[in-house]
Amino acid sequence: MAALKNDRFIKALLRQPVDETPVWLMRQAGRYLPEYRETRAKAGDFLSLCKNTELATEVTLQPLARFPLDAAILFSDILTIPDAMGLGLYFAEGEGPKFERPLSSQAAIENLPIDVLGDLQYVMDAVSMIRQVLDGSVPLIGFTGSPWTLATYMVEGGSTREFKKIKRLLYGNPIAMHLLLDKLAIVVTDYLNAQIEAGAQVVQIFDTWGGVLSHASYLEFSLAYIQKIIQGLNTDRPDGSVVPVIAFTKGGGPWLDAISECGCHAVGLDWTVDLGAAKAQIGNKVALQGNMDPSILLAPIPVIEQEVKRLLTSYGQHGPGDGHIFNLGHGITPDVDPEHAAAFIAAVKKFSPSYHL
Amino acid sequence: MAALKNDRFIKALLRQPVDETPVWLMRQAGRYLPEYRETRAKAGDFLSLCKNTELATEVTLQPLARFPLDAAILFSDILTIPDAMGLGLYFAEGEGPKFERPLSSQAAIENLPIDVLGDLQYVMDAVSMIRQVLDGSVPLIGFTGSPWTLATYMVEGGSTREFKKIKRLLYGNPIAMHLLLDKLAIVVTDYLNAQIEAGAQVVQIFDTWGGVLSHASYLEFSLAYIQKIIQGLNTDRPDGSVVPVIAFTKGGGPWLDAISECGCHAVGLDWTVDLGAAKAQIGNKVALQGNMDPSILLAPIPVIEQEVKRLLTSYGQHGPGDGHIFNLGHGITPDVDPEHAAAFIAAVKKFSPSYHL
Repeated sequence: MAALKNDRFIKALLRQPVDETPVWLMRQAGRYLPEYRETRAKAGDFLSLCKNTELATEVTLQPLARFPLDAAILFSDILTIPDAMGLGLYFAEGEGPKFERPLSSQAAIENLPIDVLGDLQYVMDAVSMIRQVLDGSVPLIGFTGSPWTLATYMVEGGSTREFKKIKRLLYGNPIAMHLLLDKLAIVVTDYLNAQIEAGAQVVQIFDTWGGVLSHASYLEFSLAYIQKIIQGLNTDRPDGSVVPVIAFTKGGGPWLDAISECGCHAVGLDWTVDLGAAKAQIGNKVALQGNMDPSILLAPIPVIEQEVKRLLTSYGQHGPGDGHIFNLGHGITPDVDPEHAAAFIAAVKKFSPSYHL
Repeated sequence: MAALKNDRFIKALLRQPVDETPVWLMRQAGRYLPEYRETRAKAGDFLSLCKNTELATEVTLQPLARFPLDAAILFSDILTIPDAMGLGLYFAEGEGPKFERPLSSQAAIENLPIDVLGDLQYVMDAVSMIRQVLDGSVPLIGFTGSPWTLATYMVEGGSTREFKKIKRLLYGNPIAMHLLLDKLAIVVTDYLNAQIEAGAQVVQIFDTWGGVLSHASYLEFSLAYIQKIIQGLNTDRPDGSVVPVIAFTKGGGPWLDAISECGCHAVGLDWTVDLGAAKAQIGNKVALQGNMDPSILLAPIPVIEQEVKRLLTSYGQHGPGDGHIFNLGHGITPDVDPEHAAAFIAAVKKFSPSYHL
């Protein structure tokens, strides 16, 4: 495959010097883009779009055609795994993801298959095709949900605000909870290794719901499995390159020390964390990715530019061993004007070089 | 008024030695209690219950009749203030609080009245009556929402998951945002002083939504106003006693240093925070209140007892200047079996004395 023309993102993840702060956006291929909505309409429902190699490739590349981003991220969904494990994923209009067969008993957990890569071949096909089309312009990020995050959807049956079923399981039957997480860690490890094999040059683990746990439960039921997955990844490639791993726990601000020791190369930060303080705390061990409040993209453009400057200043001048990837603290929302996303990225490009002298 | 027979809670807040760890529950007078549901049915809607002095007193005392709690908390709602400011609070069945006239323009903010204590007399009447009926058995906690938290409801018009309107205001028109928060800080200060005058012996400021802000915005738009309020409180009473102030920001885990310096006597912790780490970080400046995951009350009783022991051990043996008040990390939920709440409180009573030797 083609050599990388822009390796700024990989270098920053490995805490090597770069000329400017690389930038990408979580959910950059998404509903805020009119061209995405058009392709999505062609595909029918969301899951059909994920499973259609050509269309998934098309939407992955859409934001790169608009903006000078430093990375592409595979267009897919974290719930492909539970779907492949037989839970029957569907998207009810306006209600988010749902499962036809949520896990409602220990027996259901015991019976869950873990040899499911065959049913996820469409993801690897998309990775391969995206790599081909990217032709080395920027690196491609593969991704997964964390076992804890996947488990919450699988037990709750969909989105939740309250996490009652999963917490009843966690506190009431921790053995079954661990069995489920163990199975998911195996599947996730296989899944990420297959994505790497297919061409993913970076992988990110999204722990969207780790933040609803207590400190102790987070370590036991979420971070331990993220660590286990990372240990099992084939990140050292035959060509001598390394596939950096980003661990992102939304709401993980109180646990940065522990997260920074999970084996990841970079820690994703949500916007509640002070970037400068996080650098002082863990910046000598890992690169940091983030962390602008996505809501700021709804504000006037001068406010966006101001905030970009504030965050660049907060991380400060880059020295040896530093690494920062600019991003939002969570996914870009559907109501953002693409011009505001453009202004955000332009501001990072304009103001960051002076921090890399 | 009667002298306090049980001052364990006040002493712990002031970091003075106590014989056991005091305990109360956020939302202890609430829907999980059948006797509450009965009184509530008598009152009609929720707001009528808040405004009925006798019934508000009755429900305040219900959990104390069941459990050996170390404090009572005024039965009321944080949204009494915006209601008194003219926004027209109502509770739509199953939808939570709503306002008839949410703030939708800068002019609406400019026109907001701040001299509204007269319309909140029913709260002071309830405080007085509860104090009389308590007859010094345990201290009475008064409370308020923080200006930021009140503002989110006032601008969004009710509950929200996304905080889009308030963040548009914050980032798009910070001057109007500050004007609103300034007005609310004045009203909240008056309101808490009136509660203290009427007999509240402790006050808690609930910053339920501070955690949705970035670090910098939290300091500027939430904590600064909490600090301003505390500076304006008449906490030194003519009889020589002090009214301790508890500051509770849900999701405030990443900002504990700043919160501990806002002038409060105690910091409320949600369950994402490691209690032992928080003690090491700020426990020499403030008492700590919290912080069991409310979901644990849905687990079997032995799990609840286990968790109480774990948290007591996490805080550790009490020495000079230590102070811990046991509580949940957020309000008790309506689906908790009162027997589980009883087991929780009993466990604190049973296991905590050995940490106060």
